[in-house]
Amino acid sequence: VLTSRTLDRATGASVLLKMESFQRAGSFKFRGAYSRISLMTPEELRRGVVAYSSGNHAQAVALAASIRRTAAVIVMPEDAPPEKAEATRAYGAEVVTYDRYSQNRAEIGQHLADERGLTLVPPYDDLEVMAGQGTAALELVEDEGPVDVLITPVSGGGLIAGCGMAARSANASTRVIGVEPEDGDDTRRSLAEGRRVRLDEVPRTIADGLAVDTPGELTFPVNREQLESVIAVSDADLVDAMAFLYERCKVVVEPSGAAGVAALLTGRVPHVAGRRVGVIVSGGNVAADRFASLISGRTAPAGLD
Amino acid sequence: VLTSRTLDRATGASVLLKMESFQRAGSFKFRGAYSRISLMTPEELRRGVVAYSSGNHAQAVALAASIRRTAAVIVMPEDAPPEKAEATRAYGAEVVTYDRYSQNRAEIGQHLADERGLTLVPPYDDLEVMAGQGTAALELVEDEGPVDVLITPVSGGGLIAGCGMAARSANASTRVIGVEPEDGDDTRRSLAEGRRVRLDEVPRTIADGLAVDTPGELTFPVNREQLESVIAVSDADLVDAMAFLYERCKVVVEPSGAAGVAALLTGRVPHVAGRRVGVIVSGGNVAADRFASLISGRTAPAGLD
Repeated sequence: VLTSRTLDRATGASVLLKMESFQRAGSFKFRGAYSRISLMTPEELRRGVVAYSSGNHAQAVALAASIRRTAAVIVMPEDAPPEKAEATRAYGAEVVTYDRYSQNRAEIGQHLADERGLTLVPPYDDLEVMAGQGTAALELVEDEGPVDVLITPVSGGGLIAGCGMAARSANASTRVIGVEPEDGDDTRRSLAEGRRVRLDEVPRTIADGLAVDTPGELTFPVNREQLESVIAVSDADLVDAMAFLYERCKVVVEPSGAAGVAALLTGRVPHVAGRRVGVIVSGGNVAADRFASLISGRTAPAGLD
Repeated sequence: VLTSRTLDRATGASVLLKMESFQRAGSFKFRGAYSRISLMTPEELRRGVVAYSSGNHAQAVALAASIRRTAAVIVMPEDAPPEKAEATRAYGAEVVTYDRYSQNRAEIGQHLADERGLTLVPPYDDLEVMAGQGTAALELVEDEGPVDVLITPVSGGGLIAGCGMAARSANASTRVIGVEPEDGDDTRRSLAEGRRVRLDEVPRTIADGLAVDTPGELTFPVNREQLESVIAVSDADLVDAMAFLYERCKVVVEPSGAAGVAALLTGRVPHVAGRRVGVIVSGGNVAADRFASLISGRTAPAGLD
């Protein structure tokens, strides 16, 4: 957990940043994957797991599987950045590629699961994965005490579902607020309509981890109950927040991970002054070149206070 | 204090990274400045302080002075990066510039001190500054227990003098090892000759914080007693270490701050396997553009484990 005097001054709040960028495999995804794999039977572990992801979930499952000594097959688009496939293989996983314009990754995953008897580890739409991801907030409130407001990024909704429940177990009146990219605000729209909405197009945003077009089947009912609201931020807001975290906190955060801080810095989170605000900074996996090109051109102040 | 499984595997050691990049004003310099200013009499505080620095010491003194409600005058070269002067002014200090090709900053500082009755806060050559800087290692051993080896960057020698004494107060047999840039190895040479050596030229290195040409008068006797050795690293070693800390620890560290990790990663620190090794990561003040240009072009693995 990191704090920043500058962030506190800017918001009037007492902000606690739970740095999941420091988590194993670089994001909160490890929590859900490990949690799910830990519940497998010895027979299931002998056969292995399968997951589809081009992002943080891939490495999280690969690492969790290697720790539990079970085989992992990860389904990735063939045009995913080579270093992602490499990193996943480095954890001992088998990478199966597909053409994302003509093939459906869920079908491929299910086919592999059926054919080889593998256990599918979903990225969010699974109760055990949601509970595992919620341990990020559980640790936050265990270490720092209950919070008045909890802010997390929203993709399929697993992180905020689990974290919201964990934070509210410590303080039932914790306000749970999600953050989505403007172009990928499926959960915000779904909450407004009271049902799961699917966006017409795949969201275009630098927050690759949040580019989901519809809320999860299992996560949405939980989030409909407990979310106060979902705030949308632009790509420019995300870059501002990444630069702020670079300059003022000296940490590397990926675009998705900066969502909560972006929402706070734009002043769009209501009633935070004088409150204890927990923010899940969900991950730090961003290639050096990309990070450099995103934050470059900014004048960094020479220090933090 | 951060740890990294990858760093532990690479070295065989248990490495504890004391992140002074997270310190107020972004480097360990705040500790010495605050410590020195705290000892001033009410009469001295009414008059103020003066310091000469174009780097981290400038902001550290400006911030410490503002906290103790005393005026600060910082002497800086007129060609220092504008954001450094700005950051220093933002802490409430007066910035006095000089031409570093024709004027001597120590003389200007002394002149201001005499003329205005200001207290000079030296960057390292002062017992109270050394002691204050040593609290970095004191906190490390208080939080994590004694270490077998302590590694810190060496500039004027204040940090390693104070930190070495603090680490050895917890474990008298702690081996204290310094790191200098290859082109600025004045302390290494001085230790070899048994007397303070001055380099012929001002060191050229990306580690601006370590570009000192001779050890301090007060620091050197302390360091001659307690240092096992000083290891020299190249600019390329420093960039490798910055990239490692970016990729594996998701933190932003300035070139000087990466010196200890650079020494470890090059394998030049003897007998670390199986040992508890404390490393002072001294600061994180590096402008975004510079950081980007230094680490850019590298393939970042997609995660940490």
